[in-house]
Amino acid sequence: MRVTSQQRLDDGVLEREFTLGEIPGILWTPAHASAPAPLILVGHPGGLHTMRPRLAGRARYYAAEYGFTAATLELPGSGDRPRAAGAEQARADLRRALEHGEPVDEIVDRLVLPLVEKAAPEWQAALDALLSLPEIDGPVGYEGGVIAIGIRLAAAEPRISAAGLFAGSFVPAALFQEARQVTIPLQVLLQWDDARNDRQSTLDLFDTFGSKEKTLHANVGGHTGVPQFETDAMARFFARHLS
Amino acid sequence: MRVTSQQRLDDGVLEREFTLGEIPGILWTPAHASAPAPLILVGHPGGLHTMRPRLAGRARYYAAEYGFTAATLELPGSGDRPRAAGAEQARADLRRALEHGEPVDEIVDRLVLPLVEKAAPEWQAALDALLSLPEIDGPVGYEGGVIAIGIRLAAAEPRISAAGLFAGSFVPAALFQEARQVTIPLQVLLQWDDARNDRQSTLDLFDTFGSKEKTLHANVGGHTGVPQFETDAMARFFARHLS
Repeated sequence: MRVTSQQRLDDGVLEREFTLGEIPGILWTPAHASAPAPLILVGHPGGLHTMRPRLAGRARYYAAEYGFTAATLELPGSGDRPRAAGAEQARADLRRALEHGEPVDEIVDRLVLPLVEKAAPEWQAALDALLSLPEIDGPVGYEGGVIAIGIRLAAAEPRISAAGLFAGSFVPAALFQEARQVTIPLQVLLQWDDARNDRQSTLDLFDTFGSKEKTLHANVGGHTGVPQFETDAMARFFARHLS
Repeated sequence: MRVTSQQRLDDGVLEREFTLGEIPGILWTPAHASAPAPLILVGHPGGLHTMRPRLAGRARYYAAEYGFTAATLELPGSGDRPRAAGAEQARADLRRALEHGEPVDEIVDRLVLPLVEKAAPEWQAALDALLSLPEIDGPVGYEGGVIAIGIRLAAAEPRISAAGLFAGSFVPAALFQEARQVTIPLQVLLQWDDARNDRQSTLDLFDTFGSKEKTLHANVGGHTGVPQFETDAMARFFARHLS
């Protein structure tokens, strides 16, 4: 892990861009870190440059208000990383199938499964690197999308103690099965009027998770309309489980 | 409104029992009330004596941690108040219908509508009396059950600015209609595994509310298993809208 730039922001948070091999990422640490802090991995649909204002908004809030460290990583096939073979075709097929009201399961598998297979080990490698920093000592939370990646990490990565999952993208049937094995505390965020998401499928997924503590927060509005106050609700969820 | 007893509790909150005509109630005010405070009406299924520990727990938290005043009122037909004609019969009919998987709509109307018709004006009269106290100046929130009473008050009482509704009891079809007219900010609490509540009906009700800001918090567990952290989430909802 190589830090490529760093700046102290006006809320005192230190923002560092880094690369992990060829993968770019960003790390935010609180202004006055007296002791090693828990870490929140901030998920997203890919494209760090476009997503950056929203991700930094959440990460800086977690750092400035709650003293957490936060980090994110570019996804395979997004941003400046090489395009994934077949992903463009799968996205086009998905658009067409949705337009024509045709079944999408096979296309979703083709689009999302390779992404999960590639991304999850990368985030786990990032975790190795981040947890070796003196200012971070865990425990670790994961928040945001892609929800399928979050399910995989929540089910398979024992260092992740709690997850706040944003239900705004398709979940392959195989990941639905993995959701049964998730036992860590969950907070699931659903935008009630999200045109890109199947509401009933999210309710079914919430029902499926094996966790004894799981909370669904559903809010009025579309995919990008998550209310500001949910950032604080997410921080408080992590404060309960990571502090 | 006549105060019948008062005590200063160990968190500094002043707890006063009162009667409004023949109706008993309880008022909680914060220890150090420097200015008049907003008011939260704390709802319940009836039976102040039995419900008191849970109601006082929430009310004292709102008062001690957030500086709100909070008040509750016995429901018609509950506690020491005269039994409502037909309610016992309706409850027996409801139990029987549920056991046999028979339709309940007509029984629910018979049980809940008279309760709403009688309770809502009583809570409004309590509001008149409470808002005349120097330590309370509104705005006002309503929280808890009976959800049908909450819907009526949220739709019909303009002094109520925000409502946190506990979905744990039957909602007559007429109140479902009134839910469309509710436009104040809502936080709806659903216990995912509540044997006394129809989950799908609550999801439909949430969808029906006319409010532009509405949030559903669903948690694992049965009717009485609302997690402790939801009290704080409710307080923060009111802090956003009543402060």
